[in-house]
Amino acid sequence: MSYSLYIGNKNYSTWSMRPWLVMKHFQIDFTEIMVRFDNFDADSKFKQTILPLNPYGTVPILLDDELVISDSLAICEYLVERHPQLPLWPQNYKIRAKARSVTAKMHSGYSHIRQHLAMNIEAVLPEIGQIKLRDFPILRDEINFLDNHLSSLLAESESPYLFGDFSIADAFYAPMCLRLKGYQIPVSNVLNHYIETICTTEAVAEWIAEALEEKDFVVMDEPYRICR
Amino acid sequence: MSYSLYIGNKNYSTWSMRPWLVMKHFQIDFTEIMVRFDNFDADSKFKQTILPLNPYGTVPILLDDELVISDSLAICEYLVERHPQLPLWPQNYKIRAKARSVTAKMHSGYSHIRQHLAMNIEAVLPEIGQIKLRDFPILRDEINFLDNHLSSLLAESESPYLFGDFSIADAFYAPMCLRLKGYQIPVSNVLNHYIETICTTEAVAEWIAEALEEKDFVVMDEPYRICR
Repeated sequence: MSYSLYIGNKNYSTWSMRPWLVMKHFQIDFTEIMVRFDNFDADSKFKQTILPLNPYGTVPILLDDELVISDSLAICEYLVERHPQLPLWPQNYKIRAKARSVTAKMHSGYSHIRQHLAMNIEAVLPEIGQIKLRDFPILRDEINFLDNHLSSLLAESESPYLFGDFSIADAFYAPMCLRLKGYQIPVSNVLNHYIETICTTEAVAEWIAEALEEKDFVVMDEPYRICR
Repeated sequence: MSYSLYIGNKNYSTWSMRPWLVMKHFQIDFTEIMVRFDNFDADSKFKQTILPLNPYGTVPILLDDELVISDSLAICEYLVERHPQLPLWPQNYKIRAKARSVTAKMHSGYSHIRQHLAMNIEAVLPEIGQIKLRDFPILRDEINFLDNHLSSLLAESESPYLFGDFSIADAFYAPMCLRLKGYQIPVSNVLNHYIETICTTEAVAEWIAEALEEKDFVVMDEPYRICR
């Protein structure tokens, strides 16, 4: 097998980050193909590159030779099947079922956090965070829920990660940690500790370092700045 | 093992429908527990029943004895693991990877169709369908994309279902078929044929019949009617 992973800008692309982290953390070899987010118009370079591979026109995409897999979670489940010796999910089937529930919630939910707190790794935007928290009660509720929920999972976990060792579930919540950190959203000590654990996990630290190296400014991903 | 599946009203609950269809179609025995959608306030009977089981406060929930799984896709993946003899996903690993991609897209996407065309099995609302198509270009685009995409998958499939025999992927798209049908959205012949295939699949027909039996009217799920 020969994997190619298509991703967007590391500074902005939360969906790309998830399978990339899984592959890096578990040392699954792949060729990285970064397709810059110029914009999402049909004639953008991004869409022109991605659409022939993936009708959804989105990243990430995993190519395994000619096979195309076009969603972050589907990619992870594919890797689980192809690398059964690697503990991408927790080994205990009950804990694995919980990890899949929590990962699926990240896959389809937390829409207000995703809408208001766009990931932007190189930016520090505490005032935007304060304004958003002030003006959007539903965002506050979602963050409170997330904080309580992750804290209770971490209390059960007996490890710094959500379900024992680093797994797909942590990869899915890593972008969320960077959102909370970038906007300096006040959270519990337990969640703060988890954010630090995630940010210092080797694969995540590598992603962050490469995001900072990009020094790119993509207007559509910059709702809160006019320049770097 | 002893399964209990918590679901919402069959007339409205698209998320509940998916794992229910999978379990019925593949004859996985379970006890059905229907929790009526009174409303989603914290003190509603619905939330009071669901929250002690599932912090997300949503259905479906699968209980396997004391284990709680709280998302439609996580439930399906759990059943895949626990019933490896059943072809819940396509057997070929490449086709399975595609089926997972397409299912994941339904899990996280098609937000405009979901927003504007709420499932309401017993209602026939062609005028609402026309108004929505007229007023929301982004909804039209999403429906066109869905139609082209499913048609191209069906052309490759060599069967009336998306990926060979009925699978989790079809269960995920069944509520979509009922939305398109209920609002009488014009679609291609290929997609129309798929909608009919889905609606006459035994498990789906059973869900529809039971939805029609409910004769319930839940205000929060009725943006387009004041009574039945």
